[in-house]
Formats: sequence, C-alpha cells, structure tokens
Amino acid sequence: MISLTPELDKQSGIPLYQQLFAYLKGQIELGMLRENDRLPSIRQLSVYLSVSKNTVETAYQQLLAEGYIQSRLRSGLYVMPLDQLEGVKKSKPARPEVKSGAVRLPPNAINFEYGDVELEHFPVRLWKKCLVDALEECTTEVYGYGDRQGHKGLRSEIARYLYQSRGVVCASDQIFLSAGTQTMVSLLAQLLPLPEAIAMEEPGYNGVRTVLMNMGRRIIPMPLEHDGISVEHLRESAASMVYVTPSHQFPLGMIMPVHNRIKLLQWAYERDGYIIEDDFDSELRYQGQPIPALKALDTGDKVIYLGTFSKSFLPGIRLSYMVMPERAAQEFRSKLQAYSQSVSPLIQAAMYRFMKEGYFESHIRKMKKLYQTRHRMLLRTIQEQLGSHVGIIGERSGMHLLLDVYGRSGDELVEKALEYGVITYTPRKHWLHPEACPPSYIMLGFGGLNEQKIREGIIGLRKAWFP
Amino acid sequence: MISLTPELDKQSGIPLYQQLFAYLKGQIELGMLRENDRLPSIRQLSVYLSVSKNTVETAYQQLLAEGYIQSRLRSGLYVMPLDQLEGVKKSKPARPEVKSGAVRLPPNAINFEYGDVELEHFPVRLWKKCLVDALEECTTEVYGYGDRQGHKGLRSEIARYLYQSRGVVCASDQIFLSAGTQTMVSLLAQLLPLPEAIAMEEPGYNGVRTVLMNMGRRIIPMPLEHDGISVEHLRESAASMVYVTPSHQFPLGMIMPVHNRIKLLQWAYERDGYIIEDDFDSELRYQGQPIPALKALDTGDKVIYLGTFSKSFLPGIRLSYMVMPERAAQEFRSKLQAYSQSVSPLIQAAMYRFMKEGYFESHIRKMKKLYQTRHRMLLRTIQEQLGSHVGIIGERSGMHLLLDVYGRSGDELVEKALEYGVITYTPRKHWLHPEACPPSYIMLGFGGLNEQKIREGIIGLRKAWFP
Repeated sequence: MISLTPELDKQSGIPLYQQLFAYLKGQIELGMLRENDRLPSIRQLSVYLSVSKNTVETAYQQLLAEGYIQSRLRSGLYVMPLDQLEGVKKSKPARPEVKSGAVRLPPNAINFEYGDVELEHFPVRLWKKCLVDALEECTTEVYGYGDRQGHKGLRSEIARYLYQSRGVVCASDQIFLSAGTQTMVSLLAQLLPLPEAIAMEEPGYNGVRTVLMNMGRRIIPMPLEHDGISVEHLRESAASMVYVTPSHQFPLGMIMPVHNRIKLLQWAYERDGYIIEDDFDSELRYQGQPIPALKALDTGDKVIYLGTFSKSFLPGIRLSYMVMPERAAQEFRSKLQAYSQSVSPLIQAAMYRFMKEGYFESHIRKMKKLYQTRHRMLLRTIQEQLGSHVGIIGERSGMHLLLDVYGRSGDELVEKALEYGVITYTPRKHWLHPEACPPSYIMLGFGGLNEQKIREGIIGLRKAWFP
Repeated sequence: MISLTPELDKQSGIPLYQQLFAYLKGQIELGMLRENDRLPSIRQLSVYLSVSKNTVETAYQQLLAEGYIQSRLRSGLYVMPLDQLEGVKKSKPARPEVKSGAVRLPPNAINFEYGDVELEHFPVRLWKKCLVDALEECTTEVYGYGDRQGHKGLRSEIARYLYQSRGVVCASDQIFLSAGTQTMVSLLAQLLPLPEAIAMEEPGYNGVRTVLMNMGRRIIPMPLEHDGISVEHLRESAASMVYVTPSHQFPLGMIMPVHNRIKLLQWAYERDGYIIEDDFDSELRYQGQPIPALKALDTGDKVIYLGTFSKSFLPGIRLSYMVMPERAAQEFRSKLQAYSQSVSPLIQAAMYRFMKEGYFESHIRKMKKLYQTRHRMLLRTIQEQLGSHVGIIGERSGMHLLLDVYGRSGDELVEKALEYGVITYTPRKHWLHPEACPPSYIMLGFGGLNEQKIREGIIGLRKAWFP
C-alpha cells in the first residue's frame, strides 16, 4: 500500500477533509502519488488515519471533482496522468494548493454558508436577455472602460430604487459604483481623508474591517446593545467616523430603532463626523415595517451609504453602490479622475436594463417571499429538532441566523456536523478579537438552500450534535 | 566566415525572419556564436540563405532590440559579450496581441485618446456565445462570489498563454485575478508589506502612481535613458521596490533590451527587493519579435508580473491578472481569505471559454495586423503632413506615440486642434512633477481610429497647427 502520512490537525480550524484533500493533491502534484496508483479504500484510510469515513469520502470526492483521480468500476480510485491535470504545469512540481476560493462543496453536503443565494428561481432567461441586449446595443459604452463613476442610466435607476425602497433621496451624480463593497471601501480610504481610527460594531462585518485595517486604519470596537451600536460608547470615544449596519446588524442581527438612529445622527452632527451605513440586505425583513435607512433621515449630509446587489440579486454580479453626501460628492468625483471603473460596463448596462424593465423589483418581491418561507421552515425545524438545546439570535431578518448551542464548542460542533454531511461555520472571524466570540455560537446561512435541504440539514445537526 | 546552417522552412507558417531570429539567438545562447563574432552582412546572408534582405534585416533588428548583438559604426554587427546575456532563459516566440480602451466621443470629433480600442472588428458573435454558454452551463460557479483568487480554468489558460507568448513559466495558483490593474495594485498594497517608498519610471503610468500614493506610499522618480529605466540611479537610491514597464515604457515607448533587463534583475537579487513588471501591451510590437518578459528571465523569484486584457481584448471586460513569485504566492493567498473576488465570475467564465476555444489567440493575431496597418498609416501621414515640424517618440510598439511639436506649447496645440474637431492630449499627467513634461509633447492614441479617421485627424492637426 502507498505510504500516506498527512499531518491532520484537528485544532487548526480547517476541516479535516480539506486538510486531507490538500495533502493528497500535493502528493499527486509532487509526483509522490503517480499515474495509475490506486488509492486506499475509504474504509482502509479512515481506519489508518483515525478519521471518519465521511472525511475521507469528502476528500476523495473533491479529488474526483477536480480531476486528480478517476474512479474505475468495481476496482477503486486511481491517480490520473499528470499531464492531463493542467496544460502548463512546469517541470518543477507545483506546491500543494490550499483551496483559494470558496470551498467547493462535496457533492450532497448541505452547506449553511452565509452569502449563498437562491439560484433555483433565478430569472436566467430575463438576465440573459438583458446581457445580450446590452452586448448588442451600445457598443462603445459597453466595450470601453465606461464612465468611471458608473453607468449613468444605472445610477439613475439605483437612485429611484433607493427612494422607493429605502426613503433615500439622492441625485444620480452622488452615486458611485464599484466591484463589491470591499473595493468600494478601499476606494473610499484612498480618496477621502479617512481618520486614522474608525469605530465599528463589535462584532461586525470582517470583510470591511479587514480592508480598513489593511489600509492602515485602527478599529475602535464599539459594544452592541440589544438594539444596535451603543451610541453612548461612541460619544465617549475619540472616533469621528463609524461604520454601522443599522438595518440588520451583521452578524448578530439586531435592527436599530428609529430613535437610536436619530441619536446616532446627532452624534455625527455634533462631532462633525461621518457615518458609513452598510445597508447590505435591508430588503429582507420578516417582521414589521421597514425602518428608513439612516441616510433617509440624514438632514445634515453626514451619511455615506453603501448598498450591494450581492444579496438582493446575485453575488456573481460583483456590483456595489455608494451614495456620497452631497457636499463630498464633487470632491470625490474629481479625485476619481485618475481611476478607472472596476465593474464591467457590460454588467452595468445589463443591470440597467434589468432594473428599467421592472424585472428587479419583481425579482425582489419574489425572493422576499421565498426567503421568508425558508426562514420560517428553518425556525420551525430548529425548534422541533434542537428545541431547548439552542438559542436563536437575529431571527428577524436577513439570510442567516446564529445558534447558541448551550455549553458546547464551535469547533467540535462544526466537525461533528461535517461527519453528517452538514457544513456549518463559527462566526468567530467577525470579532476584532475572535476569542471574545462565545464559543457556542454557530452561524447558519440559508440563502442557497431550499426548504427540503434546510430540513435535512437541521435534522443532520440534531443527529450530529445530540445523538 | 561563421558557419550558419539554419533550417528555414517556408511551409511551416512561421515567418522566415522569426525562424532565422530564433536560430541565431540559439546559436548565441549555445555559444556557437561568440562575443565579438561579426555577423555576415545583410546582403551576404540573404544570398547565402536564399531569403530576402528584408527577412535578414528584420531578424537582425530583433537581435539588436533584445541586446544579443550590437552595431559598430561603419563596421557591422557583433555578438555581445556573453556575460551580459547570462540568465537569459530560452523563451518561445511570443504571440501578437491586441489593444483596447474607450471614452465617449463628442460626435464627429476625431479622438486620439489613449486607451480606445478597435471595436469595428470585435468578434461580438463569439464573445456573446461564450457569455451565454457561461451563463447557462455552470450555475453555482457563475452566480456566486466565485473563487476568490479567480476562476481556476481561466487561470490555467492565462498560465498557458503567458508561457507561449511571454516565456513566463508559472503555475495557475501563482495567478491572481482582479477588476483592473488599479484594483490589483490596491490589493497588493493592502496584502503585501510594500515598502514606504517605491521607485518608478519618470514619466510613468499615472494610474498606478496615483493608487500607490493614495495608499500612503512615496514615489521615488527614476530617470529614463534611451533604453528604459536607469538601473544606475536605481542602485544609488534607497528603494527596495520598483514599478517598471520594460516591454513598452509608458508613455515614452522605449523597449528595454535584454542586457538591461538582466541588470535590473541583478539589482533586485542584490537588494533583496521586488520588481513590479507591468506588461500592459507587450503584444503590440511592430518591429521584430517581443522580448521575453522580465518575469521570464527571473530566476530569483523577485518579479511580480501584471497583465491585463484591456489592451489585448477589451477594456470593458475589466479583468487584470498578476503572477506572484512562487515564494510569496501562498502568503498572499492566505491573506486573501478575507477578500471577495472583484471580477464577476460570469465574465471570468466567458473569458475562460474564449481562450480555451482558441478565439483569443486568433483575435490577437487579427488585431495585431490591424493595428500595425493603422500604425503605419499614422507614421506615414505624420511625415507627409507634419514633416519636419515634429519629432516622433516611441513609435516601435503599442497603441500610441508622442509628438514633439518643436517650439510650441501643448495647451495651445490641444486647443487649436479642438477647433478643427480633433481631440488631442498632453501626456503631462504621467510625470510625477507635471511641469517637467516638455510642453511641446502631444500624446496620440490611435487604437480606436480606423485608417481614414487617422488620416483625417492628422490632416486636421496640420491645418490647426500650421495654417
């Protein structure tokens, strides 16, 4: 039998199957496993390594999916010829690769990853029509670099949408487009004189926090109260800028009531500071009336508003928008002269058509209903299956919620769940100090799962966690 | 006389001058032709090999441009000392590529804006097919956030392309994709510990300079010599990182010969520094073959290579790529874990198909011919219309050149031209200190103009400037 000596580290936070997969892939790329070598059976390897069969199977499935091995009927799994792996592998062996992107799902696993969205009901035909129309109609606009601020028609549509859905009044020339919220925040930090220290909810969205920190800013963590960021603590701090998610605190899910929003705005006016409002998924509320965005209440022109199509439409469109305060917009625009727009004008022109034709609004209405049904199913199944073992956090809106699995540890929970084919996550990375995250928290995103999968997934969790 | 026995195959489809060039280069690298060996005259060799004088001349020009031979006045061509060639890796002949750009034209005006690209001959049907196939085939991959490093298949295609066209050997997992070169540079500055000061050609590409400066870096301007950045000045500076455009200096257009590339690499190895090589339009060379990229010569793993599809394909795709040094790639990848990919996975998947089907290569071949014809028309018309009033700078490659309109001022020239419906630009913004730009310089981009427009435009300039 082939000698396999992976060092699997159960404490590392990286799922065991991923570690095993990376090890085997590396062995193949390094030539330690060669063409036509037969891999040990799942049972053999799981006994040999003292890991579950599921771990081995998932790693094998991944190798199969990426074309490193092939299955031969009634015979087993074999390493593929190396020259079929990649056209341009150098003579030097490549290094074993740690998965670089979103983890590819082991087939059949149920993945509660936050950020996945509904694809079954996505209007492929309409979206295709808009793309093809954009491609065919306006060549120079679509093929060139495009307006550096963003497609003018699309900006008008966004302005109209923001007014209707969020009460935000703005002109299209206050709107700036970019390839995702992180690209936008990076641009902000490049073009505005952002202060050296920026206040942020703790926990808060690590995607933005990481960008700000990597741009040399210090984060001042602000405690959360039951209804959002503590304005009192903000007042006591030296901060003159704060990043907040008032419509749906990420990741804890509270919704900031109007009187607190007004207190927060007061702070900005008194401090002559700025508020960055990230309204990433405000479309998805399941209880009560929508509260107007902070920006809609901002009489003092101090809110920089961020929105995205990743949740309301598709992550794959990579399109975010920002509403700049009126007074700051012109300066921002003039500093932008040395920059190219980061979103493909084709994508922008297609989205413009999609909104103009009314497809976007009806898509959102449909999705809202769909997610609401799933959300209900999720809550019901959790109550039924996990009952008093868990608390639910942030269940009023959005595409995820947190479980507090009383008295248990996240790492153990994630690993156990994986053995039952359910992929879960700890929300730890969203704390500036991850050790402050209660270890018993588990984050469940349900955007990409239909009702049946949600049910199966939660039943899997019950079996895994409370056998 | 030296014995030369190339096997030139007229049926092979490879131009004879390329075959001859490759043969002579090989003879030099193998030591069959030695330092100070005198090459036969063009006439002698063309008779001896029964090929046209043009074939020999073109091959010799290429050897000169790449620094393999030198010309001695009234004496002939000699092989360069071999120690100046050490480290030169064999590279496959590069393939021609294309160019692109865009800005909305005032109707009827003739716009010599740099960055515009040929749209009349763009393969809309094939590109549409790739987009639609991508949209329909692989839903999760295309609709979700996608691999944060970039579409795996596309990265493999780029690796293959870079090997074939630029001699760059890399694995697909050293390649990172992003929404344009500026987004990439911003990411670099966020994730790598870039030094506080970065050296850059003066003049140099202001798009990158602006990002670096807005990321808090100081630019150390490096003077240019007739063949590119002054490595002597770089040695004398305290810089440990330099941004360069060796294949086609932007905006002055010189091409750095091989022996200087090797000196530049030596600097990096001795200083333990890094070179950022921006190879933005290396596909478009009108004399001889492309010189291998710095990255292709980089035995010490110190070159960060930047490439883009904006010139070779379409600006509107907003897709750039970077090859990280092997040793740095893994750290970069792990720091990237908190970032989403900025290019729409749909665009990436479509480009993957476009390359895999061979459409990209044939597109580049076509565009190269087209731009070459335009380039010739531009030069001829300038000589005919503007004659001794102007000098031409950087005419050996690319999609732009500079005019030195002797004794005149750029602002006046731009304004006068506009009265005749011709839009021109001063290249001033590409100087760190714009006042150092010779006032008589005018930048003409011709990528978006057909032959007739080019001719009309230059005639317009004659009328405007020399009535």
